[in-house]
Amino acid sequence: MTSHEFYMNLALENARAMKGQTDPNPLVGSVIVNDNRVVGIGTHLKAGEPHAEIHALRMAGDKAKGGTIYVTLEPCSHHGRTGPCAVAIVEAGIRKAVVATLDPNPVVAGNGVRILEEAGIEVTVGVMEEESRKMNEVFNKFIVTQKPFITMKAGSTLDGKIATHTADSKWITSAEARKDVHRLRNEHMAILVGVNTVIEDDPELTTRIPNGRNPIRVILDSSLRIPLESQVVTDGQAETWIFTAKQYNHDARKELEERGITVFPTSGTERVDLEDVLRMLGEQLVSSVLVEGGGSIHAAFLENGLVDKVEVYMAPKLIGGAQAPTFLEGTGVGLMRDAVELDDLEITKIGKDYRFTGYPNYNTK
Amino acid sequence: MTSHEFYMNLALENARAMKGQTDPNPLVGSVIVNDNRVVGIGTHLKAGEPHAEIHALRMAGDKAKGGTIYVTLEPCSHHGRTGPCAVAIVEAGIRKAVVATLDPNPVVAGNGVRILEEAGIEVTVGVMEEESRKMNEVFNKFIVTQKPFITMKAGSTLDGKIATHTADSKWITSAEARKDVHRLRNEHMAILVGVNTVIEDDPELTTRIPNGRNPIRVILDSSLRIPLESQVVTDGQAETWIFTAKQYNHDARKELEERGITVFPTSGTERVDLEDVLRMLGEQLVSSVLVEGGGSIHAAFLENGLVDKVEVYMAPKLIGGAQAPTFLEGTGVGLMRDAVELDDLEITKIGKDYRFTGYPNYNTK
Amino acid sequence: MTSHEFYMNLALENARAMKGQTDPNPLVGSVIVNDNRVVGIGTHLKAGEPHAEIHALRMAGDKAKGGTIYVTLEPCSHHGRTGPCAVAIVEAGIRKAVVATLDPNPVVAGNGVRILEEAGIEVTVGVMEEESRKMNEVFNKFIVTQKPFITMKAGSTLDGKIATHTADSKWITSAEARKDVHRLRNEHMAILVGVNTVIEDDPELTTRIPNGRNPIRVILDSSLRIPLESQVVTDGQAETWIFTAKQYNHDARKELEERGITVFPTSGTERVDLEDVLRMLGEQLVSSVLVEGGGSIHAAFLENGLVDKVEVYMAPKLIGGAQAPTFLEGTGVGLMRDAVELDDLEITKIGKDYRFTGYPNYNTK
Amino acid sequence: MTSHEFYMNLALENARAMKGQTDPNPLVGSVIVNDNRVVGIGTHLKAGEPHAEIHALRMAGDKAKGGTIYVTLEPCSHHGRTGPCAVAIVEAGIRKAVVATLDPNPVVAGNGVRILEEAGIEVTVGVMEEESRKMNEVFNKFIVTQKPFITMKAGSTLDGKIATHTADSKWITSAEARKDVHRLRNEHMAILVGVNTVIEDDPELTTRIPNGRNPIRVILDSSLRIPLESQVVTDGQAETWIFTAKQYNHDARKELEERGITVFPTSGTERVDLEDVLRMLGEQLVSSVLVEGGGSIHAAFLENGLVDKVEVYMAPKLIGGAQAPTFLEGTGVGLMRDAVELDDLEITKIGKDYRFTGYPNYNTK
Ligand SMILES: [Zn+2]
Ligand SMILES: [Zn+2]
Ligand SMILES: [Zn+2]
Ligand SMILES: [Zn+2]
Repeated sequence: MTSHEFYMNLALENARAMKGQTDPNPLVGSVIVNDNRVVGIGTHLKAGEPHAEIHALRMAGDKAKGGTIYVTLEPCSHHGRTGPCAVAIVEAGIRKAVVATLDPNPVVAGNGVRILEEAGIEVTVGVMEEESRKMNEVFNKFIVTQKPFITMKAGSTLDGKIATHTADSKWITSAEARKDVHRLRNEHMAILVGVNTVIEDDPELTTRIPNGRNPIRVILDSSLRIPLESQVVTDGQAETWIFTAKQYNHDARKELEERGITVFPTSGTERVDLEDVLRMLGEQLVSSVLVEGGGSIHAAFLENGLVDKVEVYMAPKLIGGAQAPTFLEGTGVGLMRDAVELDDLEITKIGKDYRFTGYPNYNTK
Repeated sequence: MTSHEFYMNLALENARAMKGQTDPNPLVGSVIVNDNRVVGIGTHLKAGEPHAEIHALRMAGDKAKGGTIYVTLEPCSHHGRTGPCAVAIVEAGIRKAVVATLDPNPVVAGNGVRILEEAGIEVTVGVMEEESRKMNEVFNKFIVTQKPFITMKAGSTLDGKIATHTADSKWITSAEARKDVHRLRNEHMAILVGVNTVIEDDPELTTRIPNGRNPIRVILDSSLRIPLESQVVTDGQAETWIFTAKQYNHDARKELEERGITVFPTSGTERVDLEDVLRMLGEQLVSSVLVEGGGSIHAAFLENGLVDKVEVYMAPKLIGGAQAPTFLEGTGVGLMRDAVELDDLEITKIGKDYRFTGYPNYNTK
Repeated sequence: MTSHEFYMNLALENARAMKGQTDPNPLVGSVIVNDNRVVGIGTHLKAGEPHAEIHALRMAGDKAKGGTIYVTLEPCSHHGRTGPCAVAIVEAGIRKAVVATLDPNPVVAGNGVRILEEAGIEVTVGVMEEESRKMNEVFNKFIVTQKPFITMKAGSTLDGKIATHTADSKWITSAEARKDVHRLRNEHMAILVGVNTVIEDDPELTTRIPNGRNPIRVILDSSLRIPLESQVVTDGQAETWIFTAKQYNHDARKELEERGITVFPTSGTERVDLEDVLRMLGEQLVSSVLVEGGGSIHAAFLENGLVDKVEVYMAPKLIGGAQAPTFLEGTGVGLMRDAVELDDLEITKIGKDYRFTGYPNYNTK
Repeated sequence: MTSHEFYMNLALENARAMKGQTDPNPLVGSVIVNDNRVVGIGTHLKAGEPHAEIHALRMAGDKAKGGTIYVTLEPCSHHGRTGPCAVAIVEAGIRKAVVATLDPNPVVAGNGVRILEEAGIEVTVGVMEEESRKMNEVFNKFIVTQKPFITMKAGSTLDGKIATHTADSKWITSAEARKDVHRLRNEHMAILVGVNTVIEDDPELTTRIPNGRNPIRVILDSSLRIPLESQVVTDGQAETWIFTAKQYNHDARKELEERGITVFPTSGTERVDLEDVLRMLGEQLVSSVLVEGGGSIHAAFLENGLVDKVEVYMAPKLIGGAQAPTFLEGTGVGLMRDAVELDDLEITKIGKDYRFTGYPNYNTK
């Protein structure tokens, strides 16, 4: 490990540890070094609060002068209550800057570096770039598209089923795997299911880990069929947002809104329009959504190329049943050569089960 | 490793290397040691030929006298062209015998050891017993039940599908995985599919590896719908046996038999009776069957508790489709707590795919 | 990993990354959490500057109120330019404190915790305690004994030699191993050799890595025989301190002092008194010493139970020679049962060589 | 693994398992395959008995005809009670031969293959050649040079010592390491020490493992100083051979010979001539010698380039002592660049100790 990597790694460690608390902002870490000593460390803690560089500069104080700053993301050139970080770096007298990756937003990418270079600071870009990009995969999509990063999550048997033919699904996976799902929920801003899941299972859709953060519960319900006695309507544990079609039942909406539920009509005529859902969630600054099914919802997202990441918890069990639902229904592809492959696949054993994590490669279509 | 284990391991290595060439007999290896030197090694090569002990005794010659024989399976007390091995061991003047496991056939288990002990030979049973039992899992079932060991094999996507909704299935898995399937075929005495698979895919069902042995092709076809121009009917590459229901089409049978195909009526009225199939295959000394689907055939076997081992080749792909078939159709279990778990699960990466190997645990029902 | 461990680990990561820049102070890291969010991180950067807790409290600002502070070492109750950290924690309104380990100094251990508890703060001690203790093994000895932590370092052949019988020693180990030695030097405050090493090899005893810190060069020279033209006397690259015996050559001392070299007489009559050396180094706030030989110096330290840690770089080479020196000369133990065993031994491959790291266990004597 | 490798590996497994029982002959295994079935396996069991190929051909019987033979070593063209194996292979009607490696004896290498080829057999050489050569490293040297393969064995502390300055050496290494030494002894035909080791330690020099074979005990004793009451002289547990210088004490020789000890005078005037020792041991068909020290004996062998392999058991202990002996004494090399490096080094943890295994590379001189 070179010394550049050593310091950048320290910045990355501090950034990563903030996972889940900076939304919708990216994870960013920073380290300032002077005369071969660390003189400041910083990390972005929360949207609306100072950026990582500002914390590091504050800790360094006078010792920033003449030093080298390491940042996991290009310093900003425009936003932030504390003014552009690039300007703060210049004013602190920093001499060198080492940046893991440029701003993912193509509109502003390079602006921060330009400010630094015009001030005579020597800038190196690309140290541990891949680690930094992977860390902010959610933010990187959001900032460019203003739409949330979509993770499709399923718990299935080895034969692809998510319930028996009698709709029994308790439990497909082990307690350890279900706990891991709660960790996933904790890291997402919203969790999304179809209304059928609410009708059949009446789930809480909360994060049952100590001190877990509950994501917003998003329900797709084209005709507002959701039962008013559902837990997501009544329990008040987290916000519940319902997306519906163009022609919805106005009485039902009123009933729901009286219970504190927000209803978002979309432009879909019979079904909820998914592009609208993503656009509207983005407008609400929801940068990450965990789509938890069922199989028709999953298929709708995947067939429209909207899934960014897949997390399948597979139990080594067989249940069979031509009528038992799988985690991916819909029409499906017609030819095997159009199958969606998963890139960067990782398999992790969790309890008795196996978690498959991968990224859909739509280019294979 | 003790010296007992060292010699038994050598016997096991020699036995295992004969995989596929001793059917319907078990794999057996033997080593004779005298005065701390190996003086003979033997392995059973082929049904009808001498047992492992006889080969080892022949190599040892006079040096067997006073020695210790290691055998991976209890010496026989009755059969074999060369007479009972237990008697041959006694006559050779062996002083000690170390046996991995008793004969799995409860009727004769212990008889071989008794002959040895009555002749004053000191016998130790149980050295590396588990390794020996696992090695002969096929034979151990066959000898006790006179029915073949059934391995269910499927190639599926991550979402459990074996074809798209348009019935396209070329190819689910990678070339490496398909080659591994040919290795599996090479190790089985018969391969079994439903007639729908023949009608839809017209497969050859042969072993396409250099010097591979072609298993008998077993087709389940309740009403003898198999097309006469199917490859399994016309190509003559391997025997084809068709199992049908009680009331079959006699003309069709005649046509098939004229083409060298054997037809076995079973007692099933509308569907082929699976218990009959297994019993009749056993009568033909078929000790192992690879059931290659489709999903209804798999379900029929699994729901009747007839599957002994599962081999699923899973491609990290998604195709979706509520109508796309999975590798396990039928009715399926009604409650999750009745799911069939897989014991001793092993996951092996093969090319881009993953092979899941396990043993159905029907006790979970 | 529990959430306590998660946050303490983050504090440890930040502390560890400061290795080499806090001497003679310990490595300490701190994290403040409020409402399940990290609100502050801090690490001790340099002796004389704020402690880790202060940095973390500053970053947290108002958000420290009601929060939980994680510290890798018990907060101080007395010293520091910024006042006792325990008091600062209380004043910030912290509600809970999680401490990895108490202050190693038995005189003050527990005082910091007491201040916190008397203020009504709930304190947990012992989370990741072993990791914290290992990280500060140097400081923990120094603060208790006021004597430096002694690491004995040797580069030897497989047959224990550090030079041929003609005194050739270039090179025993590979370039990679020698580079690792420079990393070790960078982490120590002083490096110590006998005057014979200076006379024979005329070494620079500096840290030849980019931006490396040069330790103080300590020479044991009972009769001030060191050549005035030695590099350690003339090159001015780092401080050179010479420890000598009671009756030294006053002219030689004058010559040395004119060249900027510091001479420390000890109470030893013929040989330098090692206990004096350690005590005097401690008085100069030298908390860590890398003893680099030769074999007589190593033996003198080990036979007096003064070595705390051993680092042997072993080249897989043989040179032989009854007269070739080994890295451990002196008298040696008389009985094998008095041999000094090495605890917690770790072997690391470095280039072609192997580094043995362990802790002498004098209890085996 | 190709099928060539599969069958050759089976032949290698059978050969390797005979380690220690074929001296002075090499380990050889053979497998015969016909129509994709193994029809014969063989291994060389003992010098003077049939070669591996003969055993395999006997097991195969008629089925050898038209088959393929796998042999780990080129079939012999000349020796053996059963006639040249190459001729036997031809006469059995073998069609193809796969050979791991040619005969290491340059005088006859290729002759066996030539006989096969002239008879029209298709021959492939080189399948798993390296595995075969490594397996017979002892024989390969012996057959070419008529001198034994020399393994230097030492048990030392981390600082290279084999005893304290008071000559105490019980115990340097752990019980597990000492047991491993007995395994080494079991695999060697002779064990060699200097007379000083006999005088100081009065060792038994036997193999204390169940059913271990005792090697011949070879003592180097230039002036026949060996005490007549030594265990190696009196216990009769194994043969003892003493090599002495030209001018030896004739009375002493007579006393020794009366006790059943064989005395071999060498041409050395003051010291035993090592080249003579190796030549004479070779004449007695001793193909492997374990040299167990002390340090002067080791140095004499190494400095003359006579050591083929090194096995050092290193205890993670320090004893020190300028006068404590190391495992490699003598004069030693003068310059570090003449150090003897160890190739193919392997480090194995045994109990608390570490075994270093390697091959001296004299080319580095
Ligand atoms: Zn900024
Ligand atoms: Zn038998
Ligand atoms: Zn403090
Ligand atoms: Zn031969």
